Amino acid sequence: MIETGACPVPASSYPHVVLGHGSGGRLSAELLKQVFLPAFGAPEALEDQATVAMPGTRIAVTTDSFVVRPLFFPGGDIGKLAVCGSVNDLAVGGARPMYLAAAFILEEGLEIDTLRRIAQSMRRACDEAEIRIVTGDTKVVDKGKGDGVFITTTAVGAVPEGCALSIASARRGDAIIVSGTLGDHGVAVLSVREGLEFETALVSDCAPVTGIAQAVLGAGRVRCMRDPTRGGLSSALNEMAEASRVGVQLDEASIPLKPEVRSACEMLGLDPLYVACEGRLVAAVAPEDEERVLAALRVHPQGRDAARIGRVVEDHEGFVTVRSPFGGERVLPLLAGEQLPRIC
Amino acid sequence: MIETGACPVPASSYPHVVLGHGSGGRLSAELLKQVFLPAFGAPEALEDQATVAMPGTRIAVTTDSFVVRPLFFPGGDIGKLAVCGSVNDLAVGGARPMYLAAAFILEEGLEIDTLRRIAQSMRRACDEAEIRIVTGDTKVVDKGKGDGVFITTTAVGAVPEGCALSIASARRGDAIIVSGTLGDHGVAVLSVREGLEFETALVSDCAPVTGIAQAVLGAGRVRCMRDPTRGGLSSALNEMAEASRVGVQLDEASIPLKPEVRSACEMLGLDPLYVACEGRLVAAVAPEDEERVLAALRVHPQGRDAARIGRVVEDHEGFVTVRSPFGGERVLPLLAGEQLPRIC
Repeated sequence: MIETGACPVPASSYPHVVLGHGSGGRLSAELLKQVFLPAFGAPEALEDQATVAMPGTRIAVTTDSFVVRPLFFPGGDIGKLAVCGSVNDLAVGGARPMYLAAAFILEEGLEIDTLRRIAQSMRRACDEAEIRIVTGDTKVVDKGKGDGVFITTTAVGAVPEGCALSIASARRGDAIIVSGTLGDHGVAVLSVREGLEFETALVSDCAPVTGIAQAVLGAGRVRCMRDPTRGGLSSALNEMAEASRVGVQLDEASIPLKPEVRSACEMLGLDPLYVACEGRLVAAVAPEDEERVLAALRVHPQGRDAARIGRVVEDHEGFVTVRSPFGGERVLPLLAGEQLPRIC
Repeated sequence: MIETGACPVPASSYPHVVLGHGSGGRLSAELLKQVFLPAFGAPEALEDQATVAMPGTRIAVTTDSFVVRPLFFPGGDIGKLAVCGSVNDLAVGGARPMYLAAAFILEEGLEIDTLRRIAQSMRRACDEAEIRIVTGDTKVVDKGKGDGVFITTTAVGAVPEGCALSIASARRGDAIIVSGTLGDHGVAVLSVREGLEFETALVSDCAPVTGIAQAVLGAGRVRCMRDPTRGGLSSALNEMAEASRVGVQLDEASIPLKPEVRSACEMLGLDPLYVACEGRLVAAVAPEDEERVLAALRVHPQGRDAARIGRVVEDHEGFVTVRSPFGGERVLPLLAGEQLPRIC
């Protein structure tokens, strides 16, 4: 009989993340068994890779790192955000998100309970988005070399036959339609940012857009669709204008904004058209189908505030402009610097 | 005529990463155009997701974050490591790695030139592994909240019909075969670790194992295969012993170790059987095929030091033991703590 020397460490002995949790050894296995598997569900075998079924001959892949601060904010947390962020990138491309890979970079000293809450939130978001976490990784960095937890998610999905959405496909006359109010996510995060807290009833719009994206695609000819996340509506439309070689003209009065977002942006000197959403979509829709798409959006729980906010034009190729209610017109350039660091 | 207001920033104006490089706005686009696209090659359109062809009905997915310190080490750097790490996880599972997603978390202040060198190194590793980077993401965290650069890669591959490697498939009598010397990577990184530098001619074994894995699979019946990375040979074999409900008995004298690794481990008080490799594989092979597999390995440039180092046994289910040249036998438990933080 050989002595094993491996005496089990009780679950409660490590209330915080230690470097050994990233060792690939016994503590890594414990973290997996105590935190991630109970939240995500256990696969058949814990391989370093997952083998999964995939229908069709084309797949869509997207990856995003999430470094939001603070980790928890009104309406969400870094875990929910990390699931929705990657799911939504696929959904707005017309793909069906199916599998998720999740990689964690933990800072030594993070509370295990915090990590558990984040993992549980990820699971709820996965259930809502009908996607499954199939593989993952955990690394630990020394205290002061990270910031609690960073999460990188990669979503893989099936691409339906005939799906050809592209940011290069917008055409003159297309309607620009948004699914709801803009900037809720960014302002909700800022409202609890250290050194900046302000009172607001606002919650983040962070949510999977899988269902609402399918509703839009089913209602009419959509040329391209984006989720206006980092850099907000302005970045999404600038990329579209550049790639499609068209201009975009917005009508400021028709852009849906919550009063709390409007007043917070005034107070902070921010332009809400640059503030991130994490559960909205913006689409360029063939003009003959715009009413059908708007109607489909407005009956969806996430689309009640949907609006046509502008149109694709032939003028000023590559640029996005916005007409104020008072008749002026200004350019919305791609933001040069960073107005809101670490919002996602 | 509308004034654009967007005056281009010359390439040289930002020698270091600033928060704006993570904004999703103009600086993000510049970083993409100046650093990543020249290194990785430009896709048809810069969508937030990539749509790619995929043969067959099963895919393999793996994800890993890389936080190695220092960023450059003898024989490699964080970029090469990030490509090989994910590629190898697929390759040892028998899949054909095809596409890679790469997500960067940059610390404000990182030199752009450093990032460029890392991106170029990733490209070279991708070419060697015959894999393509198809999508990515960049986030920037404030100085002191990261450590230069962290990279998370996710590899997606095709799974050949009939491929059924699993760490749960080892059987009594199987030969345990390694493709080369152990511990080179970990010791090479340590040799340039701040506060610990020591002179050695050793370089990391970091390399894609795609080719050598195929050589092994083509030479005989392989039950399971792993790359002994974090936690070294010991972790890989412990996971196999536990999942397969078998014991593993190693013969210490037959384990290939470079003299530099042996002496550095003695000096530092490390057990080389726990030190990471990043370009080796360990396989459980049906006994009647072990000579064919060894022969196939030894004619491969990466497999000259291949050796049979032990056997799967019925005794001590779930445990790995090693017999010393002097007749003693000790257990190699899963490491409880962390002997080498941030080696990958």
